[in-house]
Amino acid sequence: MIPGPIERLIEQLTRLPGVGRKTATRLAFFIVGTDDGYPTGLARSLEEVVDTIRACSNCGFLTEVDPCRLCTDPKRDDAILCAVEGTPEAMAIDRTGAFRGRYHVLGGLLSPLEGVGPDQLRLGELIRRVDDGLIREVVVATAPSVEGEATAHYLAKMLHARGVQVTRIASGIPMGASIEHSDQITLAKALEGRREI
Amino acid sequence: MIPGPIERLIEQLTRLPGVGRKTATRLAFFIVGTDDGYPTGLARSLEEVVDTIRACSNCGFLTEVDPCRLCTDPKRDDAILCAVEGTPEAMAIDRTGAFRGRYHVLGGLLSPLEGVGPDQLRLGELIRRVDDGLIREVVVATAPSVEGEATAHYLAKMLHARGVQVTRIASGIPMGASIEHSDQITLAKALEGRREI
Repeated sequence: MIPGPIERLIEQLTRLPGVGRKTATRLAFFIVGTDDGYPTGLARSLEEVVDTIRACSNCGFLTEVDPCRLCTDPKRDDAILCAVEGTPEAMAIDRTGAFRGRYHVLGGLLSPLEGVGPDQLRLGELIRRVDDGLIREVVVATAPSVEGEATAHYLAKMLHARGVQVTRIASGIPMGASIEHSDQITLAKALEGRREI
Repeated sequence: MIPGPIERLIEQLTRLPGVGRKTATRLAFFIVGTDDGYPTGLARSLEEVVDTIRACSNCGFLTEVDPCRLCTDPKRDDAILCAVEGTPEAMAIDRTGAFRGRYHVLGGLLSPLEGVGPDQLRLGELIRRVDDGLIREVVVATAPSVEGEATAHYLAKMLHARGVQVTRIASGIPMGASIEHSDQITLAKALEGRREI
C-alpha cells in the first residue's frame, strides 16, 4: 500500500544506526509530508558531503581540505600522536583541550565478528607516519570495549616493534559517578589503574 | 571543527522528528563514513519522492497516481468516509480490514499553539466531497489527543450543518491492557463510551 518511491526511501533510512522499520517509516512520511522543500534540501546536503568531504590522506580525519587543518596546524606537537576510531572521536578528544598533538583516524576498530581485520584499518598510513621518525609516543584512545581493547593491543604490538612508546587512555570511574553503582568490570579496571597520589 | 558541509547535513537532519543535535551528528558521521555510495543513494531516493509523490487531489493520500488507488478502487463504499490526520493513519486503519469506505486525509490536526488553523487543513476538499451528496457518514478517526479532539469537534460542527452523519472512533482500554494500570482519563472515556452487551 506504500507507494514505491516512499518504500525505497524507507529502505534507505533503515540503514541508519538505531533506525528500524517503524522509525524509518515515520521519518519517510515526515520527509514526504513537509512542503517547504525539505527533502530537496536534505538531498542537496547529502550530495554536498559526497562532493566535498574526503578522509585526510595523512591522518584520515574527514575534511574539505587535504591535508586537513589538524595536520597543517603549526601549533601542534609532532612528537605525540593520538590514534582514534573515527573523526567524531578525534573531535571529542580535541574539544577537551587536554591533547595538543596530532591525530590518526583508524577508520574503525578490529572486529573479527564483523569482518573488520587489520587490512580494513588505516594502519599502513600509521606505520608510514611513525617511520618518519618524528613521533615519540602514540596514545591509543579507542573505547574500552572488546573491539577497542583488541585494537589497542594490536597497535601496541605493531608499534613497539618500531621503537615508539605506546600509551592507553585510562579506564575507570567516570567523574561524578558513584562507586556503589559502578559495574564490576569498571571498578576492577579502576583498581588495576590506580596511581599514587 | 566540523567541516561546513557536514555541519549543514547535521542541521538538515535535526529537522527530523525525534532527532536532536547529538543524534543528527551521529547520523551525519555514519552517512559520511559509509563507502558504498549510501549518501548518494539516499539523495537519489529523496529526489525520487520529490519528483513522483503527490497528495491525491481528491483525498490527500500520498500517491504516485492521481487520483490515488483508494479513490479509484471500485470495491469501496462511497457512502462512508473516514477522516484522518495523514497518510500513515489512513494506512493503519486500512490494514485492519475493518473499514472499506473512502478516506479523507486532513493533512494535520488543529493546533492553535503550533499555528495550525482550519485553513491549513484540507477542509475545502472535504466540504466539496460531502456536498457531492454520495456521503452519508463521516467517521472522524483522529487520535484522542487535545488536537485530535479539537479537530473532531470542529469537523462535527462543520459537517452537521451539511446534514451528514458524523461519528467518532471509540476511546477506551486497548485490547490486552489491564484496568488496574490504565490511566484515569482512558478509564473515564471507557466508562463514558460503554455499550450494551
